[in-house]
Amino acid sequence: MPLLSPAFRRSLGAAVFVSSLLSAGAAWASGLPEDVKATASTLHQQALAGTGAYDVVRSLTVEVGPRLAGSKAYAAAVEWGLRKMKELGFSNVHAEKTTVPHWVRGEESGEILTPYPQPVHLTALGGSAGTPAAGIEAPVIEVPSLDAVARLDPAQVKGKIVFYNAPMKRTKDTEGYRTAVPVRSGGATAAAKLGAAAVLIRSIGTDHNRTPHTGGVRYQDGVARIPAAALSNPDADLLAAQIATGKPVTFRLRLGAHAEPDVETASVVGEIPGREKPEEIVLLGAHLDSWDLGTGAIDDGAGVAIMMEAARRIGQLPKKPRRTIRVVLFANEEFGTSGARSYAAAHQDELARHGMAGESDLGTGKVWRVSSRVDPAKLPVVADLAQLLGVEQGSNDAGGGSDLEPLAPARVPVISLSQDASAYFDYHHTANDTLDKIDPRDLDQNVAAWAAVAYAIAEMPDDLGRAPAGEGRGE
Amino acid sequence: MPLLSPAFRRSLGAAVFVSSLLSAGAAWASGLPEDVKATASTLHQQALAGTGAYDVVRSLTVEVGPRLAGSKAYAAAVEWGLRKMKELGFSNVHAEKTTVPHWVRGEESGEILTPYPQPVHLTALGGSAGTPAAGIEAPVIEVPSLDAVARLDPAQVKGKIVFYNAPMKRTKDTEGYRTAVPVRSGGATAAAKLGAAAVLIRSIGTDHNRTPHTGGVRYQDGVARIPAAALSNPDADLLAAQIATGKPVTFRLRLGAHAEPDVETASVVGEIPGREKPEEIVLLGAHLDSWDLGTGAIDDGAGVAIMMEAARRIGQLPKKPRRTIRVVLFANEEFGTSGARSYAAAHQDELARHGMAGESDLGTGKVWRVSSRVDPAKLPVVADLAQLLGVEQGSNDAGGGSDLEPLAPARVPVISLSQDASAYFDYHHTANDTLDKIDPRDLDQNVAAWAAVAYAIAEMPDDLGRAPAGEGRGE
Repeated sequence: MPLLSPAFRRSLGAAVFVSSLLSAGAAWASGLPEDVKATASTLHQQALAGTGAYDVVRSLTVEVGPRLAGSKAYAAAVEWGLRKMKELGFSNVHAEKTTVPHWVRGEESGEILTPYPQPVHLTALGGSAGTPAAGIEAPVIEVPSLDAVARLDPAQVKGKIVFYNAPMKRTKDTEGYRTAVPVRSGGATAAAKLGAAAVLIRSIGTDHNRTPHTGGVRYQDGVARIPAAALSNPDADLLAAQIATGKPVTFRLRLGAHAEPDVETASVVGEIPGREKPEEIVLLGAHLDSWDLGTGAIDDGAGVAIMMEAARRIGQLPKKPRRTIRVVLFANEEFGTSGARSYAAAHQDELARHGMAGESDLGTGKVWRVSSRVDPAKLPVVADLAQLLGVEQGSNDAGGGSDLEPLAPARVPVISLSQDASAYFDYHHTANDTLDKIDPRDLDQNVAAWAAVAYAIAEMPDDLGRAPAGEGRGE
Repeated sequence: MPLLSPAFRRSLGAAVFVSSLLSAGAAWASGLPEDVKATASTLHQQALAGTGAYDVVRSLTVEVGPRLAGSKAYAAAVEWGLRKMKELGFSNVHAEKTTVPHWVRGEESGEILTPYPQPVHLTALGGSAGTPAAGIEAPVIEVPSLDAVARLDPAQVKGKIVFYNAPMKRTKDTEGYRTAVPVRSGGATAAAKLGAAAVLIRSIGTDHNRTPHTGGVRYQDGVARIPAAALSNPDADLLAAQIATGKPVTFRLRLGAHAEPDVETASVVGEIPGREKPEEIVLLGAHLDSWDLGTGAIDDGAGVAIMMEAARRIGQLPKKPRRTIRVVLFANEEFGTSGARSYAAAHQDELARHGMAGESDLGTGKVWRVSSRVDPAKLPVVADLAQLLGVEQGSNDAGGGSDLEPLAPARVPVISLSQDASAYFDYHHTANDTLDKIDPRDLDQNVAAWAAVAYAIAEMPDDLGRAPAGEGRGE
């Protein structure tokens, strides 16, 4: 039997680990049958040699481009998704309704007024309140973290612009992002509790470009909803350097951001029907919406292309797999996952027959690990997948992606493919998220991995059981 | 004697080469004396260990930032230059008047209207005419080069927006830039001659960022001055991809660019007076102005810092060199070199006593070659400099930098240090030209090279003679 990875052992705990060693023969027997592995491996190898995924992401970025939830462009994306799914030979192509917020960025600008006047590059965080038309002019106070602001005296903060200056670390997994992102989501509320007028954050991103990173801010009921914007990293350096002179720094922030009425729109769904158990579903997800700044190539045009192309290749096999492969292009991942929640609600009766769900939403970084949230008895299948893809095996505590969270109460099994995130956060949520950032070979490596995984799970004679209760906490 | 480089041989021509071989002993004897080389080498080594140049460019970018010719910020830069020169111990610190144009960018935007509506990132070329407030809406025609547009039938061009889509090559020397830049300077006039309404160019830059590259456009008397803007490279890709669909592409361009009255301002000058021949000048130049988009760190804060710090270090020697080192921070290199032309005019009587001029204006890329334009009999001195710096020797046809061109009629000898330009054009003339792009170690390597060169030429017993007639054509 294959070596158990440390993460696998930890996830099982010592007792289960011992019992799994004792029953190693049985566990191995419950892995993937040889014929399933053979076809999965062929799918994998063929996709590594080149796929049509790049054409899909090119089409989406060139013909639709930025497609923020609730915008006209998102409606065009739905039309694109329906058309493209049909063009690629999917069955049962249709839209599934959901309601999404419609936040509009408007005009925005920022400038240091004193001691050394300079314009800066910033962008409102998604969902931010706007400022009055003339802007907010206020002194700036710099803090290194959420904890640090909580320790301040409200008298120091009242009426000021709080500047969170916490650089994000570059990591291969999403650890750097997960560590940095609470400042973006919670910084405004933490500062508002002390009477701040607005917040600026250093971009949650690892680049040195003058392209600030947006992303959602979360307000808290009963706390003032103050304007929140991200400075590009070079501009955060500039503001910090002016503050470091010891002279008082004042800043003018103008955000035209505002909310418009909610919009009824849709996720897009298409299927490769199963040959024996069409009512059992292997769900491949990605999100169709994007932020408004870039053309949504890596986030999540890549995922859309990877999942559509992986399923299409399975659909071209002479013998379709036993179960149905369902590709869901979720509406509104970025603004509260209402598309995913509507999907879970609409398919409530069917979720017990969802044999697996996976999501691709980390650009084109190479797949380097397969994690899971499946019946622990079925971990040998995951070990087989890892061996087949030539990657590490991770924990059995995978979340799998934001759009899969609403499926957790129904204990839908999750397979998660960790991608190399080292370069992703240079471009994530910025104007720089454009087609040229897509590496076609890396894109194909992702298609290959998902095609092999989805085929194997859709074809295996038994299934992955049900996932452990609760939401996954891992990548 | 040191090996003669191929470029050196070519520059001399075969006949001179033979005679120089015959008189090799004499040529070597006319190189730098050992004591001069020893002190130059010490200056070089000490600067490689670390200098104060980074603090200078930090101060300029943080305390002044963008400083377009004619702007208020440029006036602040003059004050900064005078203050910083005094602070660093320069003598005879003063401003030298010149008149500069005052072009103002204003608001600008662009969007593809059909077939697939998307906003794009663009920026007006420097000096461009503006559009009407409502913008120009017109069909787009794509051309690969200046030559290609000249071959078009005016009927194909009339009333259209001409899109020059010629990618720039990344090169170690400035060849890639020099090959690409005629489209920027001359593209508007070439298209206007055929009746175009406006031009868009692919950025003259080697990056994939959504930060378009500005730079001067040159209009021609008697030809319509049509608006001209650069698309960022990802946006040029996007526009080309929409055109490649074969559907008609229309575009809306809005440029608020306009000229305001000329402004009287100044270059900044400071000196390290010579010990024996203070009336003889070794000129170290850089330009104090920048484009308006970035903070002018690599263009040309780096050069300002390199030349000021190189001279300061020479000034701290126990025994100052024979000749005066004069640092000139030229006004308005980017908008027509009026600072340099005013300098040449004001110092006309003194130019015969300018024993050398050099300019640093290519960021912090490492020095890898020393070129020249000196009396050919003095080439052994250049060979000594190359050996001392551990770099190649280039041609004797160096231009030396835009601000040195007005000195050519007076046959002022030029020493030119070629820098590695491989990364420079990722950021040149963009919003991304910020302090974080400065590599402090590479900056120090440049300081070290200029300190050694300037000291050696200021101290050598004889001089570099007079440069050959005409302007240099090399780097």
